[in-house]
Amino acid sequence: MYEGKALLLVMDGLGDRPVASLGGLTPLEYATTPNLDGLATGGECGLMHTCGRGVRPGSDTAHLTILGYDPATFYTGRGPIEAAGVGMVLSPGDIAFRCNFATMTAGGRILDRRAGRISDTAELVAAVDGIAIDGVLCRVGQGSGHRAALVLHGEGLSGAVTDADPHREDEGILTVRPKDGSPEAARTADVVNAFVARAMDVLGKHPLNAQRKKDGLPPANALVPRGGDLNPCLPAFRGRYGLSAAVVAGGGLYKGVGRLMGMDVVEVPGATALPNSDLAAKVAAALAALSDHDFVFLHFKAADSLGEDGNAGGKAAFITMADFVLGPLADAVRDGLLLAVTADHSTPCALKAHSADPVPLIITGPGVRTDAVASFGERAVAAGCLGHVTGVDVMPELLNLLGRLPLYGA
Amino acid sequence: MYEGKALLLVMDGLGDRPVASLGGLTPLEYATTPNLDGLATGGECGLMHTCGRGVRPGSDTAHLTILGYDPATFYTGRGPIEAAGVGMVLSPGDIAFRCNFATMTAGGRILDRRAGRISDTAELVAAVDGIAIDGVLCRVGQGSGHRAALVLHGEGLSGAVTDADPHREDEGILTVRPKDGSPEAARTADVVNAFVARAMDVLGKHPLNAQRKKDGLPPANALVPRGGDLNPCLPAFRGRYGLSAAVVAGGGLYKGVGRLMGMDVVEVPGATALPNSDLAAKVAAALAALSDHDFVFLHFKAADSLGEDGNAGGKAAFITMADFVLGPLADAVRDGLLLAVTADHSTPCALKAHSADPVPLIITGPGVRTDAVASFGERAVAAGCLGHVTGVDVMPELLNLLGRLPLYGA
Repeated sequence: MYEGKALLLVMDGLGDRPVASLGGLTPLEYATTPNLDGLATGGECGLMHTCGRGVRPGSDTAHLTILGYDPATFYTGRGPIEAAGVGMVLSPGDIAFRCNFATMTAGGRILDRRAGRISDTAELVAAVDGIAIDGVLCRVGQGSGHRAALVLHGEGLSGAVTDADPHREDEGILTVRPKDGSPEAARTADVVNAFVARAMDVLGKHPLNAQRKKDGLPPANALVPRGGDLNPCLPAFRGRYGLSAAVVAGGGLYKGVGRLMGMDVVEVPGATALPNSDLAAKVAAALAALSDHDFVFLHFKAADSLGEDGNAGGKAAFITMADFVLGPLADAVRDGLLLAVTADHSTPCALKAHSADPVPLIITGPGVRTDAVASFGERAVAAGCLGHVTGVDVMPELLNLLGRLPLYGA
Repeated sequence: MYEGKALLLVMDGLGDRPVASLGGLTPLEYATTPNLDGLATGGECGLMHTCGRGVRPGSDTAHLTILGYDPATFYTGRGPIEAAGVGMVLSPGDIAFRCNFATMTAGGRILDRRAGRISDTAELVAAVDGIAIDGVLCRVGQGSGHRAALVLHGEGLSGAVTDADPHREDEGILTVRPKDGSPEAARTADVVNAFVARAMDVLGKHPLNAQRKKDGLPPANALVPRGGDLNPCLPAFRGRYGLSAAVVAGGGLYKGVGRLMGMDVVEVPGATALPNSDLAAKVAAALAALSDHDFVFLHFKAADSLGEDGNAGGKAAFITMADFVLGPLADAVRDGLLLAVTADHSTPCALKAHSADPVPLIITGPGVRTDAVASFGERAVAAGCLGHVTGVDVMPELLNLLGRLPLYGA
């Protein structure tokens, strides 16, 4: 039923280090994971150093790597991925920024970088979307909450510009400056600075902000860009591997990675990228997407966020809950699905940040050399037959098992 | 008695995946292999990703790699290796093709690409060998059965030409065309096309073909080249490693690899590259060759062919039979021989083709760090002290144990 199809489940930030309060186990080792242990028992296991040994991966570079797009070649920065993640389609040469709606004082200082965590910015986005400055079209896309993306479309632009966002409150919006001496960077900085001023003007007069003030809420009277980068123009996943593909994720970054690769983005109600995300619905959507796709990239976010909070017990509880919904994946493997389960990187609770500690990897399905590993933990999988791999090994391993690798030589 | 000498045994296509009809074991795991298990017990083991993880090796690239000639640098194509395999000596600048003797209709269509699997083409080869066209000497070498090689010797030639062979029957011989815009490719195409026409003329009038027609056999009235490539001019094995070397193989490709590296080719009666090959005679010849060589490359072919047939039981039986003749190698190890046993690639019966699944490797002999691995199987060796290696690691490992590695630094 799933013959010739593959699913990649990435549990973000899953890896960790031994935690004293968990009896010296990692959150994954501590969690109750009968489904993951069963998949490990039936599969081939190993440890993955996503971006290479001793490299501490970002979320963006990690996912590019696992999907076979070496960041050394393809990564231009986070802006375009976030923009794609909110549904914007980028053209070659476009420059994309992440933005926050923020609250400015009359004196020009940022009072709240998230405008009181405003929940719906649709009207505000519509008001600032489509401003043209010096022949450059400034497109704005709505993200979740206070988040948005800005895409500059026009000739002669560059991603080599600094942020408007001071990354702290009680400061003014920064003047964007070119990072190099190119005329493109200078022009781009000018456009962004003009856009920020125009947006502030439009937002300051917007009736929704007048209403917010009346309601005692901080107005979202500024849009503050950061992390401007050139569209990486990723070659299509389908062209690269011959596999039609879809992404199922709650977080915008992961949808963006998929969209930039030309994957279909499956929107799942209840997929929030938070610990309360409807993981069972995501698993069901992922399996459903396999009916008309060859490959699905399924992403669970919250283990990473709980690691960044230093919440080891919460992380173990989330992993237990995530495992609970994986039964249908195990069934699909019995029906011929090729499945890989891994993480993008470790997020040790003790660090509250990403680390270079390798992450566990299972590959299971038709043809795998089942090894003796019987539980899914950072230390258990080290004895597996896959050994130590890197992120760029994952897609070739899957293509090999799908019988889709080209022959090198004759 | 064998101190300072090394033997590399490559069992072609040995690696596989678990096979349901073999109780979930691979053919190698299923086979009865007391000698290989004994070598594994006394040696150091690992898994080899011949051309790198996730790369599906061809036979030619795999052997170049294991013998330490990285195909990225040295591989030009299969033609010259096959030509060397039938005993032809190539000069720099020579272009070599694989050829078939074929049966053409009067209307110019290929009736049989193998001319009724003609068994002896010596007279026909003699008739078309040495034709000169536009200052280019066209040499023909006899292969097994209907097979032959064509080597063009002259100034200003190129391997960038298409095949004359349509690779199917009931079609005409194709006009060879240049693959690039160089005058060398254009000239080479002209020479091959003229040679094909001249050969057809000579063969059409040859008395042996008249006799074949009289006997009701399809005449071998055309010689059809394919896979033309430039002589790679491999640096000599002896110069590279300081080791005099010989090759013992049944298949032409493997003899060709050795001959291109300047190895002596030991011809063994009964070495057929088929499941019926006289493996005991090959082992004896390999050990005998060590009396006047430092290094012997010994090749067993048939596990690969049986994998390509999808014949898991036959593959396990061949491996059992091959193991049976390895006693003298184990004895030689006790007498000081350094021995490596591995495969060039996996040929899973389920795929009937080469795959990127890694292959087992034993290195045993004086000085090895004997590990706990006690059986020679794809999964058992994963626990060995060699870990995961690639093909280009093999020769340095052997040179290290032979005490022949140069010092890096001081």
